[in-house]
Formats: sequence, C-alpha cells, structure tokens
Amino acid sequence: MSERGKLSIVSANRHKFLELAELAKDRGIKVEFANLSKVEIQANSLLEVSRTGAMLAFSQLQRPLIVEDAGLFVEALNGFPGPYSSYVFKTIGIEGILDLVRDRTDRSAFFQSVITYVDREQVVSFEGKVEGEIALSPRGRGGFGFDPIFIPRGSKLTFAEMDVRTKNLLSHRAVAFSKFLDFYAPRR
Amino acid sequence: MSERGKLSIVSANRHKFLELAELAKDRGIKVEFANLSKVEIQANSLLEVSRTGAMLAFSQLQRPLIVEDAGLFVEALNGFPGPYSSYVFKTIGIEGILDLVRDRTDRSAFFQSVITYVDREQVVSFEGKVEGEIALSPRGRGGFGFDPIFIPRGSKLTFAEMDVRTKNLLSHRAVAFSKFLDFYAPRR
Repeated sequence: MSERGKLSIVSANRHKFLELAELAKDRGIKVEFANLSKVEIQANSLLEVSRTGAMLAFSQLQRPLIVEDAGLFVEALNGFPGPYSSYVFKTIGIEGILDLVRDRTDRSAFFQSVITYVDREQVVSFEGKVEGEIALSPRGRGGFGFDPIFIPRGSKLTFAEMDVRTKNLLSHRAVAFSKFLDFYAPRR
Repeated sequence: MSERGKLSIVSANRHKFLELAELAKDRGIKVEFANLSKVEIQANSLLEVSRTGAMLAFSQLQRPLIVEDAGLFVEALNGFPGPYSSYVFKTIGIEGILDLVRDRTDRSAFFQSVITYVDREQVVSFEGKVEGEIALSPRGRGGFGFDPIFIPRGSKLTFAEMDVRTKNLLSHRAVAFSKFLDFYAPRR
C-alpha cells in the first residue's frame, strides 16, 4: 500500500463515524471523518451500493478511504427496507415498519453492513451480519435509525438499549469493520 | 440537433415503453426500446435520479435518448415511496402501502413522472404530475405497479381500471411526454 497516514471514513452520518472510530482506536488505527455525501445507487444489494459509492468517493478524495453501508432486512417483507433503510427511516420511520409487520408471526430480520476499502491499488469489501427480530414497540435511546426496534438474537435488549461499547461487541457494523481491520492493520 | 432517426427510450420496463410508444405514434415520432438497466441513484427527487440516469445511459449508447422515472408520493407518508416506488412495489407491494395508510384520514397522493432527454448538445427534463388518492383496496388489471390503488382526481376509476388510451389522456407520464414532444417534434 503506497499511501500512509490517516484513513478517511466517508459518511454523511456522524453516528456511524463515532461507532467506527471507537473500534479503530482499540486497534491503534487513526481515522478521520470525511463528511461527503457519497453517491448511493439504487440496487438490490448493499455490496453493489457500497462498491460504487466507494469508487466515486475515491475519485473525488484521491486518498485511502472506507465507506460503510448498512440496512435492515425484514424477512416477512422480502428484505424491505434493505438498501433503502435510510430513506425509509426518514419517511415512514419506525412506526411504518411496525405497521407493516403488525400481523406477522415471523418477525425475523437482520442488519447487514458492508464496508468497502479503496486505495490506488485495490477495492475490497467486507461484510457483517447480525440476525435478530423486530421488537413489538420501540425501546431505548441509544444508536440511531431502526436500532430501537431491533433485538439481536440472544439478547433481550434492542440495539438502542445498549451503550456503544456493548453494541460494538455484536453489531453488524462491528463485524464488518473488524474484518476490515484484520486486513488493514498489518498493511499500514 | 445533429442526430437523425429514431429516438431511443431507455427503460428496464416494457410497460412504460408501450405507453410512451402509443403517445409518440400519435405525433408521428419513431421510437425504439433500448432495454438497458439504467443506473438509478438514491436521491430524494426524481429529477436528480432522472438526470443522472439519462447522462449515464447516453455515455453508453451515444445516441439521442430519453429516460423516464416515475414515483408515487403519498402525502401522509412524507412522500414515501417516491423515487423508490419500484423497489417498494417489489418488496412490500400494494398491500404494504395499504397497511401504511390504513388508519389515515388523508389518503391524498400524487404520481410524478420526469422525462430527461439527452443528445450530444443538451440535457433537458420535463415533468408531469397527477393528483389523486389511494383507493381502499386494489381494483383493475391494467397498467402496472401501484396503478390498482391510485384514483386520479375527478375519476372514479383507478389507473388499472382504465385502458391505455384513457390512462394516457391524464397520466403523469403522458403529461411529461407531451411536454417533451412539444420540445422534440419541431426539432427533428
């Protein structure tokens, strides 16, 4: 890897940056927040959204960076809201998702995160996934987005009821970022 | 305009092409179906989606073309599903929209269409909009997408209960395409 120094985390979402910065610190990696509204394409897979977004961001910033894309995939809704979770959160919100699963017996869902790293030489993606279910009502004030209605498997708490460090022990984003760090840390 | 001959209609949706071809025929314009899965970005406005998609399609095809993007915007849902109507249709479908507006007194909604024309010299967009409301249940077998639950203002029928020619008298797509033809026809 030819470039040295800090790694840019490209995001329009400061919450995401803070979660990732916390994880990076534990591994002695310096990161900086590049508050760029990256281009997201309409696609059925986060991987496609992430890779296109990362390459377009690199074409602007011209330095090593990662982008992270995440979505909540509800099984009974054919994966909705998936790659469009952010837009769906802003429009119909948590109440909308609860309305849509109200009469469903299957409330299983997963959160997925895809992190794509780009530098001059390569584009590499890492995935993290956490299975769980949609809560009956929103609980907790931590996290962001759909965290108040997502209960990861094995837990009684929603993501929003956990503090950052606890959420970071098991979140989709932490899993993807940890895979990325295993790749990145030895190469710095 | 330097290019001659047929106009390409870029779409992954043959229904759209057929509606537009019918309108073009009335004006003596020859069109051809370019079945290209155009890139759609995630954006809050159809205009942005349309212009980016049209320019990317032109960079591939290198001939005069139009793209058409449409969405259903439900007022009580903050404009959802809007630019993401196609994905929302494929996942939660018509029943999903009906679930989301079930307890709403305000069922008003509009369909919007944006057509963007590109050739070597220019990029021009045209808009069409039709106001209406969400039906209590799906009716009709014509059209596609959310047509069975959309009742345009002044009508008792849903779009799906109309034949193509009737729908073409008042649809958002017909309005946008008619504006485009007023621009395009004299220049051929």
